[in-house]
Amino acid sequence: MKFAHISYDAGTVRILDQTKLPADMEFIDLRSWRESAEAIKGMRVRGAPAIGILAAYGLAQAARAAAGPAGAVAGAGASRNGASAHDLMSALEDAAEQLGAARPTAVNLRWALSKLLASARALAAGGASEQTIAAALESEARALHEADVESCRRIGRAGAALLPVGVSVLTHCNTGDLATGGYGTALGVIRSAFADKKLAHVYVSETRPLLQGSRLTAWELAQDGIPHTLITDSMAAHFMQAKAIGAVVVGADRIARNGDTANKIGTYGLAVIARAHDVPFIVAAPLSTFDAATGSGADITIEERSPEEVTLLYGRAHAPAGTHAANPAFDVTPAGLISAIATEGGVLRPPLAGAIDDMLSQEHEGSTATLEAAKGRAK
Amino acid sequence: MKFAHISYDAGTVRILDQTKLPADMEFIDLRSWRESAEAIKGMRVRGAPAIGILAAYGLAQAARAAAGPAGAVAGAGASRNGASAHDLMSALEDAAEQLGAARPTAVNLRWALSKLLASARALAAGGASEQTIAAALESEARALHEADVESCRRIGRAGAALLPVGVSVLTHCNTGDLATGGYGTALGVIRSAFADKKLAHVYVSETRPLLQGSRLTAWELAQDGIPHTLITDSMAAHFMQAKAIGAVVVGADRIARNGDTANKIGTYGLAVIARAHDVPFIVAAPLSTFDAATGSGADITIEERSPEEVTLLYGRAHAPAGTHAANPAFDVTPAGLISAIATEGGVLRPPLAGAIDDMLSQEHEGSTATLEAAKGRAK
Repeated sequence: MKFAHISYDAGTVRILDQTKLPADMEFIDLRSWRESAEAIKGMRVRGAPAIGILAAYGLAQAARAAAGPAGAVAGAGASRNGASAHDLMSALEDAAEQLGAARPTAVNLRWALSKLLASARALAAGGASEQTIAAALESEARALHEADVESCRRIGRAGAALLPVGVSVLTHCNTGDLATGGYGTALGVIRSAFADKKLAHVYVSETRPLLQGSRLTAWELAQDGIPHTLITDSMAAHFMQAKAIGAVVVGADRIARNGDTANKIGTYGLAVIARAHDVPFIVAAPLSTFDAATGSGADITIEERSPEEVTLLYGRAHAPAGTHAANPAFDVTPAGLISAIATEGGVLRPPLAGAIDDMLSQEHEGSTATLEAAKGRAK
Repeated sequence: MKFAHISYDAGTVRILDQTKLPADMEFIDLRSWRESAEAIKGMRVRGAPAIGILAAYGLAQAARAAAGPAGAVAGAGASRNGASAHDLMSALEDAAEQLGAARPTAVNLRWALSKLLASARALAAGGASEQTIAAALESEARALHEADVESCRRIGRAGAALLPVGVSVLTHCNTGDLATGGYGTALGVIRSAFADKKLAHVYVSETRPLLQGSRLTAWELAQDGIPHTLITDSMAAHFMQAKAIGAVVVGADRIARNGDTANKIGTYGLAVIARAHDVPFIVAAPLSTFDAATGSGADITIEERSPEEVTLLYGRAHAPAGTHAANPAFDVTPAGLISAIATEGGVLRPPLAGAIDDMLSQEHEGSTATLEAAKGRAK
């Protein structure tokens, strides 16, 4: 994309409203952390890494609002700072709780919030002023945004290396620029494979109910000139039976310690169908998607969204009035159906549990170099 | 339903326009066989048995139009009759060809046309007048319509007998009143199981792209007070993983001699997913769905419909302008994934090829009693 779909300036987050795509390119300004939380809840920005970034900016907004204008308390003594920093931290904890609750499944959201909260706490403990803390959170949110783009490029290269020349892939939902800081996870793999001249074709599943495949992924692929065919979610098995699809590449909203992966509803069915056709099933996700606190898929909360997302299209009901509809936004693919996970630290291969444990402990030490070792062991 | 969705009177077929459901109950009059063919092509009536019935009425319309008003040639001699009957047969062959081409996959369409054409030929060969032939085709079309309702009730009982008490089933597309002469095939099984107090719940897959599940099946189930939940096609695997679904019951558009079954796109994926979860996969279809001339699924022509059915919803594009979309209307489920086929002649079980061969040869002899023997052998 030629523009940032999320940008931040002086307490305002400007986002491209993804609910209006592809018909309208409408940017909206989020002027408070509450507006940012609402935008996440309403899926104006969606995609696990992207909502992590928006939540980080949201927390920066909360800090800026709580700190007041720069210089307001200039010259105040340390104790005065300490008390105010305490108030600021309370405001931040409250904002983080509500931002984190906006969507329950993707872990990147809470990962980003935890990271920023920890920084704020450390600064507060060191006697920093509210303004200093607020400025630091703004910087950290921006840094997190920039790092996500770089992670996506590394994920893209790692994932593309797994694909053979001439491959046609199926992808689900949207995992591109719009789902991340930029470039994309699964779509980053596709972009990288296309750049490497390996990619023949992309099958895009429309991704009911909210049609992120047709509205967003087809839109991104068209912008990049990557050849693609839109299909309904129900056609995937037919095209695998016809041997038209050589790999499935998807993103992730949360990866448990054992490798079980929550992703957009429909992903698990694709994994089952891919396995039945001996088609590799590749997950592409940044390290922030792995959650050490989640042992397995059974521990993942699946967000249940409004049934009207299923029964209405453009405000018009296609089911009879009063029809009961289910709307789980995600499903869980067991680790055993996943051929590989492409991360910015390299590729994890089955058995995933050990590879993930190694990776998480290395990450804890802040080292990405050692990820390569984890990757090696996993092989 | 309290009304017939297809009825015939004096050369006019009145149909409920299924493309308008559930928002509008709009009946339209088809005044010629060409209008009937257009209604089949435009899916105003759809469902393999239902389009067979409409095609039969269409051929009766063609005969009536070609024969002219009753009594017009009263008193004409045998040779005059013979020549006119020859013209009538030419008109009928032409109409049958175009009615049969309206949709290529369902075999019931061509089965009904062949049956009526054979009757007309026999009458013509016996020296019957055009009026006699036309009247006979009207009677035969009505009889075929009535027989389909009775077949559906028998299919329903046969299929319901396969289900355990307390079962929740998943069904795909619409196979009910609206897809048949009345009662339904897979939905007939569901109706019968509900009447037997065996049925706990029905999961209705919405069936993209044309949403027959949400528009038609949810509508029929609501009318009958059968508890149901609408899901997107992509949710089926999630609910099987959650053990919410005890059986999948679907209809069929064509069953090959080896048991491979063409049905609405998405059926094959459901069969793969059902097998992976050890969930029985039951096909419900009348004998007219079996095609002795089709050896296996590889011989079945899959209708490719307009990409706009995938990219537009209520006339509004949800994919970017120019997006290439695939739209195969059907897929083929290999016999090996089918647990049983419920027919009006009883239940066929694997290995299906032998059971079908027996059944087709018995049917050829016009005996349904011997179907029970075929069924026995298949067990």
